[in-house]
Amino acid sequence: MAAGKRSLHDVPAGLPVDVVAAGRRWALTKRSGVGLSGVGDYSADFSTAKCENLIGAVQIPLGVVGPLCLQGAHVGPREEIFVALATTEGALIASTARGCRAVREAGGAIVHAEDVGMTRAPVFRTSGIQQTRRLLDWVADHYQDIRAFCEETSTHLRLLDISPQCVGSTVFLRFRFTCGDAMGMNMATIACDRVVNEWIVPQTGVPCVSVSGNYCVDKKPAALNFIEGRGKRIFAEVVLSRDVLATCLKTEAAALCEVQYRKNLLGSIMAGSLGFNSHYANIVAAFFMATGQDVAQVVEGALGVTCIEPRGDGDVYASVFLPDVPLAATGGGTTVGTQRESLDLLGVHADPLQPGAAALRLAEILGAVVLAGELSTLAALSAHHLAGAHERLGRPVKSMDPARA
Amino acid sequence: MAAGKRSLHDVPAGLPVDVVAAGRRWALTKRSGVGLSGVGDYSADFSTAKCENLIGAVQIPLGVVGPLCLQGAHVGPREEIFVALATTEGALIASTARGCRAVREAGGAIVHAEDVGMTRAPVFRTSGIQQTRRLLDWVADHYQDIRAFCEETSTHLRLLDISPQCVGSTVFLRFRFTCGDAMGMNMATIACDRVVNEWIVPQTGVPCVSVSGNYCVDKKPAALNFIEGRGKRIFAEVVLSRDVLATCLKTEAAALCEVQYRKNLLGSIMAGSLGFNSHYANIVAAFFMATGQDVAQVVEGALGVTCIEPRGDGDVYASVFLPDVPLAATGGGTTVGTQRESLDLLGVHADPLQPGAAALRLAEILGAVVLAGELSTLAALSAHHLAGAHERLGRPVKSMDPARA
Amino acid sequence: MAAGKRSLHDVPAGLPVDVVAAGRRWALTKRSGVGLSGVGDYSADFSTAKCENLIGAVQIPLGVVGPLCLQGAHVGPREEIFVALATTEGALIASTARGCRAVREAGGAIVHAEDVGMTRAPVFRTSGIQQTRRLLDWVADHYQDIRAFCEETSTHLRLLDISPQCVGSTVFLRFRFTCGDAMGMNMATIACDRVVNEWIVPQTGVPCVSVSGNYCVDKKPAALNFIEGRGKRIFAEVVLSRDVLATCLKTEAAALCEVQYRKNLLGSIMAGSLGFNSHYANIVAAFFMATGQDVAQVVEGALGVTCIEPRGDGDVYASVFLPDVPLAATGGGTTVGTQRESLDLLGVHADPLQPGAAALRLAEILGAVVLAGELSTLAALSAHHLAGAHERLGRPVKSMDPARA
Amino acid sequence: MAAGKRSLHDVPAGLPVDVVAAGRRWALTKRSGVGLSGVGDYSADFSTAKCENLIGAVQIPLGVVGPLCLQGAHVGPREEIFVALATTEGALIASTARGCRAVREAGGAIVHAEDVGMTRAPVFRTSGIQQTRRLLDWVADHYQDIRAFCEETSTHLRLLDISPQCVGSTVFLRFRFTCGDAMGMNMATIACDRVVNEWIVPQTGVPCVSVSGNYCVDKKPAALNFIEGRGKRIFAEVVLSRDVLATCLKTEAAALCEVQYRKNLLGSIMAGSLGFNSHYANIVAAFFMATGQDVAQVVEGALGVTCIEPRGDGDVYASVFLPDVPLAATGGGTTVGTQRESLDLLGVHADPLQPGAAALRLAEILGAVVLAGELSTLAALSAHHLAGAHERLGRPVKSMDPARA
Repeated sequence: MAAGKRSLHDVPAGLPVDVVAAGRRWALTKRSGVGLSGVGDYSADFSTAKCENLIGAVQIPLGVVGPLCLQGAHVGPREEIFVALATTEGALIASTARGCRAVREAGGAIVHAEDVGMTRAPVFRTSGIQQTRRLLDWVADHYQDIRAFCEETSTHLRLLDISPQCVGSTVFLRFRFTCGDAMGMNMATIACDRVVNEWIVPQTGVPCVSVSGNYCVDKKPAALNFIEGRGKRIFAEVVLSRDVLATCLKTEAAALCEVQYRKNLLGSIMAGSLGFNSHYANIVAAFFMATGQDVAQVVEGALGVTCIEPRGDGDVYASVFLPDVPLAATGGGTTVGTQRESLDLLGVHADPLQPGAAALRLAEILGAVVLAGELSTLAALSAHHLAGAHERLGRPVKSMDPARA
Repeated sequence: MAAGKRSLHDVPAGLPVDVVAAGRRWALTKRSGVGLSGVGDYSADFSTAKCENLIGAVQIPLGVVGPLCLQGAHVGPREEIFVALATTEGALIASTARGCRAVREAGGAIVHAEDVGMTRAPVFRTSGIQQTRRLLDWVADHYQDIRAFCEETSTHLRLLDISPQCVGSTVFLRFRFTCGDAMGMNMATIACDRVVNEWIVPQTGVPCVSVSGNYCVDKKPAALNFIEGRGKRIFAEVVLSRDVLATCLKTEAAALCEVQYRKNLLGSIMAGSLGFNSHYANIVAAFFMATGQDVAQVVEGALGVTCIEPRGDGDVYASVFLPDVPLAATGGGTTVGTQRESLDLLGVHADPLQPGAAALRLAEILGAVVLAGELSTLAALSAHHLAGAHERLGRPVKSMDPARA
Repeated sequence: MAAGKRSLHDVPAGLPVDVVAAGRRWALTKRSGVGLSGVGDYSADFSTAKCENLIGAVQIPLGVVGPLCLQGAHVGPREEIFVALATTEGALIASTARGCRAVREAGGAIVHAEDVGMTRAPVFRTSGIQQTRRLLDWVADHYQDIRAFCEETSTHLRLLDISPQCVGSTVFLRFRFTCGDAMGMNMATIACDRVVNEWIVPQTGVPCVSVSGNYCVDKKPAALNFIEGRGKRIFAEVVLSRDVLATCLKTEAAALCEVQYRKNLLGSIMAGSLGFNSHYANIVAAFFMATGQDVAQVVEGALGVTCIEPRGDGDVYASVFLPDVPLAATGGGTTVGTQRESLDLLGVHADPLQPGAAALRLAEILGAVVLAGELSTLAALSAHHLAGAHERLGRPVKSMDPARA
Repeated sequence: MAAGKRSLHDVPAGLPVDVVAAGRRWALTKRSGVGLSGVGDYSADFSTAKCENLIGAVQIPLGVVGPLCLQGAHVGPREEIFVALATTEGALIASTARGCRAVREAGGAIVHAEDVGMTRAPVFRTSGIQQTRRLLDWVADHYQDIRAFCEETSTHLRLLDISPQCVGSTVFLRFRFTCGDAMGMNMATIACDRVVNEWIVPQTGVPCVSVSGNYCVDKKPAALNFIEGRGKRIFAEVVLSRDVLATCLKTEAAALCEVQYRKNLLGSIMAGSLGFNSHYANIVAAFFMATGQDVAQVVEGALGVTCIEPRGDGDVYASVFLPDVPLAATGGGTTVGTQRESLDLLGVHADPLQPGAAALRLAEILGAVVLAGELSTLAALSAHHLAGAHERLGRPVKSMDPARA
């Protein structure tokens, strides 16, 4: 690029990745006049990072909330955990910390996470109804063979089922896999690609148009995933007493329930939304960046439904439901050192003897943090505080005042 | 926390933010046994960062694609730009770089971005139909006063309109503002909070239940935003000749159009999706992290529709449409040093004499990168390459081989 | 058909429609062996009916509910009206009659109906972004001319606005018209067809691909119509005391509110539905058949949201919202004699001096009947009665027992 | 009513239904001054009709199209059928007749219909996550008992499966049944009511809030039904040669495909619609009224996706897909004499030895008629004819001119 013909990825073999990145920065600065010393001043080891044409790193501030108190199949009972969140949104950390305090004072959150599985749906072209029927019959008849073929591509992958969908001359086969502690998208894609191109297509003669047919659905908001789930399906709940509502959250049951009703239910209904919640996306995004998840999957991960219901004597029952959260405890961005530390802080470590358990622990913790964040924001809204909080906290923060959060 | 009573945000006033963060790391490590040296080894200046309870930073690798060639109202003609993307998804940068090359060889992308405006919708409780009618009449009658009231809260904010929506005893007033080069959510919230609580509620006696009523819609996927737009509405397009398809993208018109048809259109239709595209989310997320945007808004920003249409003699017309992209050229995460450098590389600098122009330039560039990324992935799928590419590139990358990208 | 070459519509000119229909029945019976004496035994005058290839009529039983008590801009105050409904669904009439009684004992429904207008959206093909911009600018610049052109096609039609929507090389122009007391779809189509083909296309050179581009949206459920409205947008509400709940509806506030919450809100949310109600479709369909509406538009007309909220001391507030109800007081099926009698019973008569008032009266009445029907069904469900009612009433009904309804 | 205290349903026992209806008409006329001689002049036998408070009948004109040529599991091969449609929409019959001619000249439609089953989803309230898990485990453990309990309620009902869905303290159990030739909604409701109230609730102690939880989804448009299907799922297709396109449909492949693309796909996408078709609702509504179906279910039945794809040498492949069509060959409105004749004309007769076969035959025929209607309308639009056709045919029709249809 700089010296005429050489492009950004055309570099001599064998150079350390940091040296190559420095060379690219030099060339970019020479060409554009823009200094890149900040992005070049990173400390992480990117020698194994999956980022081509590396020029450095962005740094995203990391705050901490907690202790979050929760219990589920992979946490607790009443385990207390500090959670790091990466964000540049003022007030998010402070507000979520307040929610964690409320949840802890209420005795902790109950959480439940299911490994729905990672999905990939190749799309096929048939000649019409009759060939479609023959293809679907063939797939049903050869399910065990297909499963064996898929599972040979990785020791961590198990085929759960194949759901077909058809329209006109188009057939989708939605494969659903468990993938241990990996997020699983690559694993699922490789398995589908192999079984489709090396077996289904040759055996049936039906051409595959694309190994991903958008009936998967990856990184797009979709009713299908909302209904069927994808990745982890997460539930978390807590009952807050009148006293915790008053002291921690500065609100009361009726006000909180009314915000839930008019905003999270009616507002989302009137807007044709797939998110019946206040701000899952904020917490999911901050958690995903902190822990090295695939941030594009926040699109799916932020779907879901909050419930807030009055219970006798001024208490409330509060729950969150996230049907579609792809998560990894290993691989991808979880291998970057800073993100690994965030996972360590959560006690999330893949264990070959319990494949999938670390990812479910991560899911359970995420559920409880989302619950905490949701409660605090809804409480703040119910007290007509939101804009004021933003005004005060959406400014440089020097040191936190205990009265604030 | 560590020493018994002191909590994570309960620190002596006046200490530098980095010192306080170090103290928090020490306390966390003492309690959890987890080393946090990586997150503590940051170089950015977070003294003004909007992240409470700071303990350090995560580092996300940054790669570069380009030159991207495009033209629009705020770029070009045929301007060539390098774009930094932050990601840990293998193959994403390499693939997008290939798309940029195809777009450039095709003569560059045509882009168009509109400032639809930032929205916020307070929700009110009325006694029913008759009070709702009176409230809506009152708002219509006092529109100019409301506008003046809102615009006093910021020199950068202009009220565009107020759209009401009602159901039962619930009324939403969706305010739409331009906010110059800021993303605008805080600005809009502050303006709504003031006008609602200091004027509309006192004057009409109708209580406001929440300053945000989810009819905004912020950070949730929603048909309302898809239809009406929010933030920036972005269009980008290019015509690719048969030759560019063959040499750059290793595909041909019929195959590309078929993937578009069966995957992006039919697959998304069958899945009840709001994303009729291949992977906008990947590029939007990587762009948002690189340039300091609010990453939770990827949820909205990734909505949209790709079109690929055959043109005579083996060419194709390709376009992307992103109706709902909140973007900032100033404020929030754009002030962090590393993210600022990414913006500098794009030539995005807020100019007080042309408020909003920098954010629109950013939008136009994003449109063209999304187009490049979309084309490359669809082309790869059309050549049955995706899984293979992931298998090869979803591994540690030492130096890029020109044949790959 | 029968005698070789002659087809079903190939008949000598000038014969009375009933004679021709008899001929067709004879031919069909001859060919198929199926007797058609029932469909031939009709009494209505179909000489002006819009049904080609007429062979007779189906007869749909008509029941009556009421008196319904309501008030709005075009009914009341506290006007009492009997409403005929055409149905073959057991229990529907009895249940709705019970709802009418509850509404009347509660003092009557408050109703509000708006003429949002009938819409039609021609779709155009442009060469891309730049021609699209020019087309939209041209339309904005020539809005008054377009309006004049449209309004020349009918004395009853007024253009309200044109909303554009674009994606890639495709442009939709959604025209919105008031059409007096007609439903207006034909009127709107004719106006669009004329202005598009005789003026917009010739003037701009941009081809129109179809006068209806599905962005209208006619007879399909769509978020666009839900949000923007179409035809009439209807609101109806009532406050039911604890006593009316107990005596008329055999239920109480808490039970009714819980069914509303878990069924109409959460159930519809989890199902990805556009109908947040119990059974608007039943009442809308029965009302449309009774009054000669376009029954295919039940698809739109049944969209909507019910609200049930507790009010102090065991009372409830109940409302219905129907955003998208095309309705006619004149033309189409309203001219058939039996349907005309149903309209007469409602006091719905188009008045040239008050164009549109009769259709709005019809809308207001529909809103109140839907409210009555919704309340009765929700009350029955809340008392765990539904299946029992169906079991008892879904059988031949000889004479109604007062204890039942 | 008329004479003071007596209400519309308060009549002496034992009177013939027609006499009672006459009494009601007399009373209504006396009270309202509106003559009801038309609705009273019916010929059908309503002694077993499921319509309470009967006052008479509406008459809806019935036209005929065909012969429709099709083949599937329950029709054909190349069977030719005349189909009666009840409508007051001008041009609908003429247009559909043209479509039938095109389908026949193309060699007939291929059809496929599946009995997805009728669904009902009771909704339960639990104390939260833990009780929900216990309930779902209990249901899984007792599935065979539940099935036996359900199937005892009707000899025609078979339980296919139970799909659970949960959010917060709310659980939905979606029961799916085959119901022979009945539409099945009442049968499914009775079975659910019994098994829920007599067994699941007593055994588990978990209260059922409503036997219908809107996760069924009955008579509401919903992504769930679109994806999973409900009632019958119907596919129909045909390949039209260049010659048939030109002679029968006055169009050509490119024009037809472009209308499909810009209208049925892009237009519906941009409108957030669940109907990716031109006008299924028209044909489904006319068919439902003619054959005595539950007309409120047009709301579901009209969902679906049309595909039109170019095939070599100017031909096109055309298909329709209707995922959610409840249909009955017996019971409900099918017992009314005039509707029965329409079914007879289709050769639809429930046969106890082949339960469900008649309903599937009905579904296959509906699929082919929808295909014919869709093709003719899309062809007309592609020739810019729609408004003109409405203008000419949306007027009184005396006798059909062969050139018209």
